[in-house]
Amino acid sequence: MAPRTVDVPALVESARAGSPRAVARLISLVEDGHPALREVMAALAPHTGRAHIIGITGSPGVGKSTSTNALVGALRKQGKRIGILAVDPSSPFSGGALLGDRVRMQDHALDPDVYIRSMASRGHLGGLSWTTPQALRVLDAAGCDVILVETVGVGQSEVEVAGLADTTIVLLAPGMGDGIQAAKAGILEIGDLFVVNKADRDGADATVRDIRHMISLGDRTEPNLWRPPVLKTVAQQGQGIDEVIEAIKKHTAWMEESGALRERRIRRAGDEIESIALQALRAKMGDLRHGNGVDELAAAVVDGTTDPYAAADQIVAALA
Amino acid sequence: MAPRTVDVPALVESARAGSPRAVARLISLVEDGHPALREVMAALAPHTGRAHIIGITGSPGVGKSTSTNALVGALRKQGKRIGILAVDPSSPFSGGALLGDRVRMQDHALDPDVYIRSMASRGHLGGLSWTTPQALRVLDAAGCDVILVETVGVGQSEVEVAGLADTTIVLLAPGMGDGIQAAKAGILEIGDLFVVNKADRDGADATVRDIRHMISLGDRTEPNLWRPPVLKTVAQQGQGIDEVIEAIKKHTAWMEESGALRERRIRRAGDEIESIALQALRAKMGDLRHGNGVDELAAAVVDGTTDPYAAADQIVAALA
Repeated sequence: MAPRTVDVPALVESARAGSPRAVARLISLVEDGHPALREVMAALAPHTGRAHIIGITGSPGVGKSTSTNALVGALRKQGKRIGILAVDPSSPFSGGALLGDRVRMQDHALDPDVYIRSMASRGHLGGLSWTTPQALRVLDAAGCDVILVETVGVGQSEVEVAGLADTTIVLLAPGMGDGIQAAKAGILEIGDLFVVNKADRDGADATVRDIRHMISLGDRTEPNLWRPPVLKTVAQQGQGIDEVIEAIKKHTAWMEESGALRERRIRRAGDEIESIALQALRAKMGDLRHGNGVDELAAAVVDGTTDPYAAADQIVAALA
Repeated sequence: MAPRTVDVPALVESARAGSPRAVARLISLVEDGHPALREVMAALAPHTGRAHIIGITGSPGVGKSTSTNALVGALRKQGKRIGILAVDPSSPFSGGALLGDRVRMQDHALDPDVYIRSMASRGHLGGLSWTTPQALRVLDAAGCDVILVETVGVGQSEVEVAGLADTTIVLLAPGMGDGIQAAKAGILEIGDLFVVNKADRDGADATVRDIRHMISLGDRTEPNLWRPPVLKTVAQQGQGIDEVIEAIKKHTAWMEESGALRERRIRRAGDEIESIALQALRAKMGDLRHGNGVDELAAAVVDGTTDPYAAADQIVAALA
């Protein structure tokens, strides 16, 4: 099927003017790996780099949606335009399965300055590493001041989301994860802020102590490195949210002063470039295959007159 | 850590002379993605292409290990040298979890002409698509007449194993999978032979009929195409095994006459070449990154003076 033609300049202009429909369409182009993406990204480039990207991750049940909702409320009071990207098949926004979570976000569902979008974490083009950064690019160019990327902390996804964010918030709940658990899951390395939500429950202080202790054992105690604070919230009642906002601000200031922000963003852009380049090389290789370049070498491998490594060398050379 | 140096010519010579230790060491080099692999594969190349590769797949509980055991017994009577590669984390050979299955194979554990090896399906270099073909190459060059690749039919693995085999046997059991289920799982496309094991149980004939019916609905009815037979076995008692061996022979003859064997092997070698080439390109890209080529472009992306696609174009060009 031929992809629908896209009037990229008009679409980008609408998105920049704040049209949620245009933003939605652009993100759909990203998800579909649409041929027009190249033109879209070129058109967006000059308008990117303004948004502050905040990753929020944590196990199911720690209160990610409630916390996101509360953070959005506080940021809206400051007049910020917000994008929310929920990434994960099991995430509140991606399906009907967790309707309760969706309801928790509905405070902002009708606010024109809050754009909410869910994305499948694994698209046909290779998942988070490919689609999410480009969706962030769309929201950034569309004028979001802050983009919250929410992901369920399962397996690799939380580490990936940390790679995408300027500031990563790791949410915990009392009794759900002790320091040791956190260390095992690798989240001590990725959190710029640790927030123990549901802090009105038993064991909150113990969890805070635990995490603080584990952080103190880590490598982050050098003076010029960021020492992640461990905060307490009861997001349901808005308790502690201002302190989280304050900590985000401090982290942002540190990131800017230390040069870490630029460094992170360069690393992120590098990852993005690499995955696009690999995709392009894969496509080129597919062309070679159909043009019989690979097939001839494969026949030589079958005949034992060459081996797969020597053949691969020739393919790599042919891609030049 | 520096990899241990390997005397490749000596190792290949030992493997070809029938040393199980040498074969084991070569397959370990494959699993480790050892730098000497390139030399190993070059040394093996002239000695490959003789083995007939038989894939055996099926859901847990259909009797894969018992069937493999029975097939090996029958092939040993013909004096064949056999390699068995069990691929899958949940496979009988890969861990202690399924000791019962391992015991079922012990008829041949001490036979010097039967080499048994388990492999994790997902290595750090990208899994079945990378390591298994190279392990097959080792067993082939080591003089195996027949190599049985056994994999648990879960998710993608059975389709992958079919890609590696000259002849793919899909095992079923009465009441475990009807034709519709088989069609859904995509196994109708991959099976060259269908074997309903545990055929002394109720429903065996119905399952056979079902599968035959589904096959008849498929695209394989043209005169020059192989029409997969559906056989019945009670592997535990050796019933029907000779018929399976006979069917394998017929399929092999058809493959050779029709040219399908060479075609399959060329496709397989092509896949192997591609994955090695992509791996090499990835490594080259890593070098570029450390040499700052990617980092400079990434900085330009962060500054909005270029976009990731344009940057990727430059990287692809630089890889030439």
